[in-house]
Amino acid sequence: MAAPVEFYFDFSSPYGYLASTRIDEMVAKHGRKVEWRPFMLGAVFKLAGTAPLTNVPLKGDYSVRDFKRCARMHGVPFVMPPKFPVGTIVAARAYYWLVARAPEKARPFARAGLSAYFVHGRDISEREVVGEIAAAQGIDRDELLAGAEAAETKERVKAVTDEAINGRGVFGSPFAFVDGEPFWGSDRLDMVDRWLATGGW
Amino acid sequence: MAAPVEFYFDFSSPYGYLASTRIDEMVAKHGRKVEWRPFMLGAVFKLAGTAPLTNVPLKGDYSVRDFKRCARMHGVPFVMPPKFPVGTIVAARAYYWLVARAPEKARPFARAGLSAYFVHGRDISEREVVGEIAAAQGIDRDELLAGAEAAETKERVKAVTDEAINGRGVFGSPFAFVDGEPFWGSDRLDMVDRWLATGGW
Repeated sequence: MAAPVEFYFDFSSPYGYLASTRIDEMVAKHGRKVEWRPFMLGAVFKLAGTAPLTNVPLKGDYSVRDFKRCARMHGVPFVMPPKFPVGTIVAARAYYWLVARAPEKARPFARAGLSAYFVHGRDISEREVVGEIAAAQGIDRDELLAGAEAAETKERVKAVTDEAINGRGVFGSPFAFVDGEPFWGSDRLDMVDRWLATGGW
Repeated sequence: MAAPVEFYFDFSSPYGYLASTRIDEMVAKHGRKVEWRPFMLGAVFKLAGTAPLTNVPLKGDYSVRDFKRCARMHGVPFVMPPKFPVGTIVAARAYYWLVARAPEKARPFARAGLSAYFVHGRDISEREVVGEIAAAQGIDRDELLAGAEAAETKERVKAVTDEAINGRGVFGSPFAFVDGEPFWGSDRLDMVDRWLATGGW
């Protein structure tokens, strides 16, 4: 059985959200699975001396226009969140706590978190908001929020982020690997599709 | 008659080169023309505090891999030039001098310049190289190089670059406008195609 496609994203990344709405179905066409790996994009910004797209002079207005245009093109609901970007460490920790404790709930939680932020404009940096999103998915809110603060959960997010950046060369969101081949950006999904179909070129 | 698609690029931009090999034919399918507008991307780097992709920590190796992968996907010849990036002001001035004096020779010269750099690895920052490229196109070498140094030619490149950045919000290469709608990156050409076909969404 072929290894899963690895899908790195930050919960505060518009292009990561856009990719999340398409990647599972697209990869499934090729009989493959996707492993979702939220990570902390802020660590990249620090390391590379870069910044969120919307904070880069000249790029900001274009980026927001392009987020919306890409979403409309694919028929995906999208609003530019009123607070952007936001810290996503609580969401990421909650995700990996679920991966360890109730793996079948992790991806639905991640989808709900991305929707809360990019469809409903909710501030997912807030613990209360993350707790509400989890509760709506039938997850015990208090248990989740406590688990997110556990040392092993914190360590897991740190390790995933460190391995992504220093081990795999991830420098943006979304970032996917197909059998080791790296693809940066939601606009590379069509190329991922072609790579899966052909085995590469 | 609809306005031409405006195609901004820097002679030292790999993705600009890749787009240049596809944009004319793609736009022509829709009965439209393309206006080529080389500009000085270095001015953007200064203004935005950014840097060539290959100089950005983490992004460098990926970028070169992606240039080559995109070229192979589209069946376009490409080598990573041994000297990269290079200054392109002589090539840009030569282009606009041709636009003023022998407009039918400007685009073939631009194509030859891009090929010299991205297929044959020649250093197009050198006046001698630009002169040889022009001569091979049946352009008077000495007249071109003198014309490239004329005050009005220098001013033209400065004005195009200034208008691109400050007037149009161009911040990368390639950058295209379709009826005012901005598209950044060679990976937006399929979207340009769709925009031309549908009138936008």
